[in-house]
Amino acid sequence: MRASQYLIPTAKEAPAEATVASHVLMMRAGMIRRVAAGIYTILPLGLRVMRKIERILREELEKAGCLEVNMPMVIPAELWRQSKRWDLYGPELLRLKDRKGAEFCLGPTHEEVITQLAASEIKSYRQLPLNLFQIQTKFRDETRPRFGMMRGREFVMKDAYSFDLDAETAQVSYWKMHEAYTQIFSRCGLEFAPVEADTGTIGGSLSHEFQVIADTGEDALATCVSCGYAANIEKAQILAVAPAAVKQTGEPKRLDTPDVCSIAELTSFLEVEGKCVIKALLFELGDQVIMALMRGDRELNEAKLRALLDCDQLIPASPETLMRSIGDVAGFIGPLGLQDIRIIADHEVMAMNDAICGANARDQHLGAVQPLRDFQAETADLRFAEEGDICGRCEGQPLSFRRGIDVGHIFYLGNKYSKAMGATVLDKNGKPTPLEMGCYGIGVGRTAAACIEQNHDEQGICWPVPVAPFEVHLLALGKQQEILDACEPLYHELTAAGLEVLYDDRPERPGFKFKDAELIGLPWRVGLGKRGIDSGSAELVERRSGERFDVPLAELAEFLTKRIVPARLGN
Amino acid sequence: MRASQYLIPTAKEAPAEATVASHVLMMRAGMIRRVAAGIYTILPLGLRVMRKIERILREELEKAGCLEVNMPMVIPAELWRQSKRWDLYGPELLRLKDRKGAEFCLGPTHEEVITQLAASEIKSYRQLPLNLFQIQTKFRDETRPRFGMMRGREFVMKDAYSFDLDAETAQVSYWKMHEAYTQIFSRCGLEFAPVEADTGTIGGSLSHEFQVIADTGEDALATCVSCGYAANIEKAQILAVAPAAVKQTGEPKRLDTPDVCSIAELTSFLEVEGKCVIKALLFELGDQVIMALMRGDRELNEAKLRALLDCDQLIPASPETLMRSIGDVAGFIGPLGLQDIRIIADHEVMAMNDAICGANARDQHLGAVQPLRDFQAETADLRFAEEGDICGRCEGQPLSFRRGIDVGHIFYLGNKYSKAMGATVLDKNGKPTPLEMGCYGIGVGRTAAACIEQNHDEQGICWPVPVAPFEVHLLALGKQQEILDACEPLYHELTAAGLEVLYDDRPERPGFKFKDAELIGLPWRVGLGKRGIDSGSAELVERRSGERFDVPLAELAEFLTKRIVPARLGN
Repeated sequence: MRASQYLIPTAKEAPAEATVASHVLMMRAGMIRRVAAGIYTILPLGLRVMRKIERILREELEKAGCLEVNMPMVIPAELWRQSKRWDLYGPELLRLKDRKGAEFCLGPTHEEVITQLAASEIKSYRQLPLNLFQIQTKFRDETRPRFGMMRGREFVMKDAYSFDLDAETAQVSYWKMHEAYTQIFSRCGLEFAPVEADTGTIGGSLSHEFQVIADTGEDALATCVSCGYAANIEKAQILAVAPAAVKQTGEPKRLDTPDVCSIAELTSFLEVEGKCVIKALLFELGDQVIMALMRGDRELNEAKLRALLDCDQLIPASPETLMRSIGDVAGFIGPLGLQDIRIIADHEVMAMNDAICGANARDQHLGAVQPLRDFQAETADLRFAEEGDICGRCEGQPLSFRRGIDVGHIFYLGNKYSKAMGATVLDKNGKPTPLEMGCYGIGVGRTAAACIEQNHDEQGICWPVPVAPFEVHLLALGKQQEILDACEPLYHELTAAGLEVLYDDRPERPGFKFKDAELIGLPWRVGLGKRGIDSGSAELVERRSGERFDVPLAELAEFLTKRIVPARLGN
Repeated sequence: MRASQYLIPTAKEAPAEATVASHVLMMRAGMIRRVAAGIYTILPLGLRVMRKIERILREELEKAGCLEVNMPMVIPAELWRQSKRWDLYGPELLRLKDRKGAEFCLGPTHEEVITQLAASEIKSYRQLPLNLFQIQTKFRDETRPRFGMMRGREFVMKDAYSFDLDAETAQVSYWKMHEAYTQIFSRCGLEFAPVEADTGTIGGSLSHEFQVIADTGEDALATCVSCGYAANIEKAQILAVAPAAVKQTGEPKRLDTPDVCSIAELTSFLEVEGKCVIKALLFELGDQVIMALMRGDRELNEAKLRALLDCDQLIPASPETLMRSIGDVAGFIGPLGLQDIRIIADHEVMAMNDAICGANARDQHLGAVQPLRDFQAETADLRFAEEGDICGRCEGQPLSFRRGIDVGHIFYLGNKYSKAMGATVLDKNGKPTPLEMGCYGIGVGRTAAACIEQNHDEQGICWPVPVAPFEVHLLALGKQQEILDACEPLYHELTAAGLEVLYDDRPERPGFKFKDAELIGLPWRVGLGKRGIDSGSAELVERRSGERFDVPLAELAEFLTKRIVPARLGN
């Protein structure tokens, strides 16, 4: 491709809203342009990266026996009502009405559509296992779209759905996809880790995220060097601290704390540390009222509580519920003397002595509170893993922490959707059985962005060969006809050798071209100017290492082919 | 691909809503499934056809120098307001609001998005010509979605947009796309014709439709064997009939026609033919009131009137406008004695003597009306070409008529969008000049459907090789292991020869497999059963011709390769 006939609008600066490297570099390298918040046009250079990732996805998924389909983006509300997610999904689900007033949503994920298809088309166990995938545009109306392609509202996703007769074969399908994902991200040339993850609103009981390791990642990961355990900190099992020796004597002391409602206000007012205070959080789940207890210096890990309660979302208790179940005591609630409230305490709470908590009376707290003596509670792990925590899996080493970008997520769903939507098959005995499902997603644009986060330097992107938009950047170093005449056959020769060449034939100065080349970051740069023509050799630079090579023109194609072709296969 | 591991849910019957062959056959052959009105999931077999068409599109467009981009489906209202189409486009434009209440639409076409991109990225004439295309999902909220993929609401379209410095080079870009489209549809193996077309709401002054010739097509086409002129009947120029000799004497007669409002009522009441009556239609265009006159037996060709008035849409006059400009005379309007109304009559109206028309008085018409004597009017061609009309281009032969399916449409837009949205470049003298644009669309699903309309018989589809989902349907004729053992190496051999083989290895009876094979309609069927194993030959059937060949197993790959490989290139 000749740069003079291509569209790569590079820029020195990125807009202020771009704060992470991939967003900045995708804007600066002319890969994407913003249309609205979280909505982008992908320009030719960006699209080439997307297409390469998509090709890797197709090849590996087809190898794993998946079949490609294409589902619509505009989905009738009716399907989402059947799965109950119409009400549960929240405002990320963009709802709309057609000209006749019928309700639809823009698909943020496609469990409903595919399960309806399965319900009508899969009739016998003999059609199983079946795994259908698509590479399709999704929409999620994020509160705060950010980081360019990393957390957009409209984005391209590969989603796949497996169907099996029973839990056992469904898990075979699940692990087959785990393997396919490992292949996919290896082939993209990424450093990544599959980690155990929370299943979130999608449901199910087994889940892994594929995390590209990067300091700028939004997710924190915990790993154990001893047993190899790896999990999102939302999910990471930590060794429970032992409960404290319970002081059987003494009793709580009433503390006057007028208008002191928050933990911050309380610790400041009483001049104590957060770890001396018990934080109580009230939720409602159907008719049940739940109180979660955390140490005052800890944050509730909602994923862990959701998993414990087996619910899709945590609903904070309304003022009415609080009034009815405890009284007009917002800001002063605590676990003592309650009836008909299910109390769940983090392990650490039970390790406290002389704790401070709300008194369930306006403007009052209690001191010298002793868990187990003064109140009873279920105990559970309700916090995020932190530096110093011991691996809860092997109960051996302290966990290590890294950051990652969640580029793929796989879920074993069980029969949540198939039951709700009547997707049953006849088993070997002719008995109708709900299908066992799994679902499997990879964000295509996010994978491209993650790749940049992991592969860039001050000057620009350093593309790994398998997803590079082109493999070779050939620069004519000068505007003179003599130089263009020497580059032209080189361009043809390298292209004929099967290499993907971007040929910068623009009438620009060498310095300008070098800057663009560093920014765009193709794996190999080949420069040919007056000096090279005289010496019969071109200057090659490997973008990532910066290593330079003087290669005779006659050997150029062979030199590059030897290095690029094997690198196409990824890690 | 083994049928036992594939998903082709064939069916004997299609749902009642399927009335045209392509819809029926796509449903029956398991290519698509309905999700909602005009919204489909595309199953693996259907997707293979889409992908083949997409590949042909990409190859030919890249050959023509177009660059691929990807624009979003969710488009901010702001862009559509700039082009004024937010108000003009009508309810086909599906409008929605995001969680913050910001207005968006689902893109039915992308002139606005691409023009904004051009406005920000094309700065100099040196970047021109530029042609950007995408293959992307669109949404048009059709009043009456129908015919499956032919007129869906959500559909995949290839759209391209050209940018040039002036009208002259823009037309070079236009005709280059005309040529690319000709290549594309030839390569798809379609019989088609490019015809002159109306530009509709998209604007511009030059337009061609690429029509696939099929009796079931929604469009009527007029062609002239003498001069080669071809046009949609909306657009087709017809030789004007000569005006009648004007009777200078006599005067109109008042007729009492109580409650006789419509043409049908009038002709029945007066016992005259429709061609004796003048039909008057009232429109408003800004402040202007327009009366269009047609012979009572003719339908107004709105496209021709729109083109004449140079407007995007015809707005029927409101009751208030009628009241103000003529009076309370709905159903009784006519061209006599009017002030401040622009009257435009079809040529045929001026060829009438003793005509009947509304009297502009309640319950009254006029008879013995003589155009030119009793009223004046602009004359124009306002009707659809019909059998017997003479070609208006060469004024020679009568026009011939065929039906077609509009699969591609190209428009020369001029600077309508670039002016509205401020997309200017600096010309050679450094002067800002609005870009000259063209736009170019091809419906991918509709092309697949058109292909079926043109290539099917009673039993099913007869795919042309270039877009067939697979090229060879290998059938194991029997469930016995011996037969499967003989088919297996054949399957590998044909696949290894580079042929796309669907291998029906299912444990079904031969008759069942034959029926499926005819329905799915792959170009070549290869059957191998007990008898073939004994004789060392397979039975081949060419789907389209039904021609049968007995081919020794050893020669099979060569036999098929010789016939299939050249056919991949299309017409």
